[in-house]
Amino acid sequence: MAQSGGPTAVINSSVCGIVEEAQQHGKIRDIYGAVNGILGVLREELVDLRQEDPSTIKNLRSTPSAALGSCRYKLSERDFNRLLKVFAAHDIGYFLYAGGNDSMDTAHKVAKLAIEKKYELRVMGVPKTIDNDLQVTDHCPGYGSVARFNAIATRDANLDTEAIYTSDTIKIIETMGRDTGWITASTALAKETEEGGPHLIYLPERPFIEDQFLTDVKDVYDKLGRVVLSVCEGLKDDKGQFVKASTKGIDTDKFGHAQLGGVGDYLVNLISEKLRIKARYDKPGTIQRVSMQCASQIDLEEAYRVGQVALSMAVEGESDKMVTLIRKQQDPYHSDTGLVDLDEVALRTRKVSDEFINKNSNYVTKQFIDYATPLIGGPLPEYARLRRRKLERKLPPYV
Amino acid sequence: MAQSGGPTAVINSSVCGIVEEAQQHGKIRDIYGAVNGILGVLREELVDLRQEDPSTIKNLRSTPSAALGSCRYKLSERDFNRLLKVFAAHDIGYFLYAGGNDSMDTAHKVAKLAIEKKYELRVMGVPKTIDNDLQVTDHCPGYGSVARFNAIATRDANLDTEAIYTSDTIKIIETMGRDTGWITASTALAKETEEGGPHLIYLPERPFIEDQFLTDVKDVYDKLGRVVLSVCEGLKDDKGQFVKASTKGIDTDKFGHAQLGGVGDYLVNLISEKLRIKARYDKPGTIQRVSMQCASQIDLEEAYRVGQVALSMAVEGESDKMVTLIRKQQDPYHSDTGLVDLDEVALRTRKVSDEFINKNSNYVTKQFIDYATPLIGGPLPEYARLRRRKLERKLPPYV
Repeated sequence: MAQSGGPTAVINSSVCGIVEEAQQHGKIRDIYGAVNGILGVLREELVDLRQEDPSTIKNLRSTPSAALGSCRYKLSERDFNRLLKVFAAHDIGYFLYAGGNDSMDTAHKVAKLAIEKKYELRVMGVPKTIDNDLQVTDHCPGYGSVARFNAIATRDANLDTEAIYTSDTIKIIETMGRDTGWITASTALAKETEEGGPHLIYLPERPFIEDQFLTDVKDVYDKLGRVVLSVCEGLKDDKGQFVKASTKGIDTDKFGHAQLGGVGDYLVNLISEKLRIKARYDKPGTIQRVSMQCASQIDLEEAYRVGQVALSMAVEGESDKMVTLIRKQQDPYHSDTGLVDLDEVALRTRKVSDEFINKNSNYVTKQFIDYATPLIGGPLPEYARLRRRKLERKLPPYV
Repeated sequence: MAQSGGPTAVINSSVCGIVEEAQQHGKIRDIYGAVNGILGVLREELVDLRQEDPSTIKNLRSTPSAALGSCRYKLSERDFNRLLKVFAAHDIGYFLYAGGNDSMDTAHKVAKLAIEKKYELRVMGVPKTIDNDLQVTDHCPGYGSVARFNAIATRDANLDTEAIYTSDTIKIIETMGRDTGWITASTALAKETEEGGPHLIYLPERPFIEDQFLTDVKDVYDKLGRVVLSVCEGLKDDKGQFVKASTKGIDTDKFGHAQLGGVGDYLVNLISEKLRIKARYDKPGTIQRVSMQCASQIDLEEAYRVGQVALSMAVEGESDKMVTLIRKQQDPYHSDTGLVDLDEVALRTRKVSDEFINKNSNYVTKQFIDYATPLIGGPLPEYARLRRRKLERKLPPYV
C-alpha cells in the first residue's frame, strides 16, 4: 500500500484498516508499505508492516499526517514498467493506493498495464482528500476532519471578532480547497445565530467579483459593525484567473498545479484601500489538514473502514475500483461502502453543487448544512454566553 | 470588572475567578461587568453578573475569547473624569481590569485619579496577554495556551512536511507576538527529535538579516531536504524597520501600533526567488489566541487564580497593584501569586531574555525550553511512528 498527495488527519486510519484487515486473510503472506507513495515503489523503498508492533498500527488511528510518507509525483511512461518490475520482484499481488483523483488515475493506469502485461495484480483505490472533490462517493475521508477544524476555527474567529469588534472589525479566513469550495463551505457550520459569523462565504465555483464582494462586506459591516468571512485559496475572477497565486514556475507542482495561497492578504488590502476599514486574515494553511485535535470521529471511523473494505474486496477478486461512501441514513447518520470503476473517478473533479450555493453566490444553502453536518462527527464544543442583563443608566450619554 | 485587549483562551477563567470569589465576600453587594472594556464604563454599559446562572459563570472556564467583550482604546484626559462619574453613579468601590501593559497603565491612571479626587476606589490589575510581555510576573495568563496551540500546530506542520517533503519542502509558521518573541519561541516545544522541526526560529529581539536567514534555510535544506521554521509577525531588520507591516494609517490602532502580519508570505517569496525552493506558510492568526482545543490546563487554572486573588486582595485593602505569578517549583510545576505596583508594569515590555536565545539568533536555548515546558500544561498528544523496517532491494536502483 502507499499514501499519496496531501496528508490528512485520517489517512493513517486507512492504513490501520488495511493492515488489520490483511492480517485476517490467510491469502496474504506479507504486508508492505511504500515510503513516500508511488516514489517508494519506483525506488524500491518498501517497508515490512508485519514488523511493526500491533500497538503502533492501532495508534495510527490517532496519528495525523501520513505515516508512510507521501508524494506528489506524475508517473512517466517508463515508470509504469518499473512499477511492475518492483511488484514482480517482491511477489506483490495487491496494490492499494490512498489518494485523490490524480492518484486514482495512477492506480487505474497501473491496473491497465498489469492486465496488458499479464501480471496478476489487483489494484484498489482508497479515497482520501480533504478537498472532498472525488466523484461518485458521497464524500471523501479527510473532509469531515478538515471541515470540523474549519468550523471550530471559524467559530473561534467569530467569537474573537465579536469580543473586540471595536477595533478588530473584519476577519477573513482563508481555507484550502484549490478548485472546489467544499472546505470553505464548511466554515458555515460555525454559524450559531442569525448575527453570528461567518457572514459571507466565497467559493471558487463562482467568479469572484471584487465590486460585489466590497458591497457585500459593506452591507454586513453597516448592519453589525463587524464581518467574519471565509474565502477559498483558489478564488478566480470572471476571466478565470486566480485572484492570487504564485506565478513562479518553481511553485508549480508535478501535475502542473500552481501554488495558491495569499488571497486573504490580498483582500485585507483591498478592504483597507476601498472601504477604509481595518481587516485581518487567518490562514491556517496545512495545519488544517493534519489537526488531530479537531478530527471528526465519523471521519476517522470511515477512513478506517474504506481501508478495510479496499483490502477485503481485493481479496474477493475486485480490481481497478475505488471504494466509495454511500449515505444510508441522515439522522442518526449512517453510511455504507460501495465500489466504483477507477476510470470513473480518475482526474475528475466534483465541484460544490449548485443547490449548495446561495443565489447571491456569497453563502451556502441549508441543503449544504444538512449535507456537511453529520460528517464533522457531532456538535462543536459548547461555550458559555453571558445573558448580559444591563444596568439602568444613571448619567447622560457619553459623547 | 472589565476585559481589555486581545481575547485569549483563558481570560474568561479570570472573570469566573473574580465572580466566584466576589460571591464569598459579604462586603461586596453587586458584581458588575463593563461591556467592551473601559469603553463600557465610559458608555455606562454595565451588566449585572449576579443575574447570570452560576452554571454560565462556571462554564466561562471552558469558553475562549472575552465574554464581556473587549476593546483597544486609549483614554483621553476628559475620559478619566467620566470614569469616576460612572463609578460614583453605581456606587462602585472596586475596579478590576484584565489586560496587558496598556491596560495596566489605564488602571494605574484610574487609581491615581481616584486618590486625587478623594473617591474611594480600589483598583487591581489582572494580568492577561498571550504576548507574555508583562514585567515582573514569571509569565502571563494566556501565554501557556497560545504556546500549547503553537507547539501543537508546529508539530503538526512538521509531521505534514516530513510526510510530503518530496514536494512540500519548506514550511514557515508565522506567529503573533508583536515586539516580543515569546509566542514564536514556543514553537520549539514541538521539537521531538534532532532532525525534527522546527529547525529555525526567528524572534523580533534580534535584527532579521535576510542573507543570514537564507544561509540558515539553505543549510538545513541541504542536510535534511526540508525545513520547518517559525517567525514572529513583528520581525524587524537591522534598521529597526518591520520586515512586513501595513503602512496604512487605518491599520494603526488607538495606541499607535501598526498592524502586523504577512511576514510569512514575504519570506515564501524571498525563498522562492533567492533559493529557488518551494515554500509555504501557515498563519494561524487570531485563531491561535482563542483555541480552547489547545488550551493549557495550567494556564486555565492560573487565570482563574489571578482573578480570585485580585478580588480578595482588593477586599483586603490593596489597590493600584497587579497580581503576579511566581514560579515556586519547576518539577512538578507549582506557582504562587504575588503583587506588584501597577506603575512598575504599566507600558513596560518584557523582551525574551538573552539566555533564552541561541548565539546564532536562529533558535532558542534549553533554558527557554525549561521555562516554557510546564506552562503548556502537560505533554503534547502522542503519535505513532512506524519503525519502517526496510525490505532488501532486489533490483538495480531507479534512476
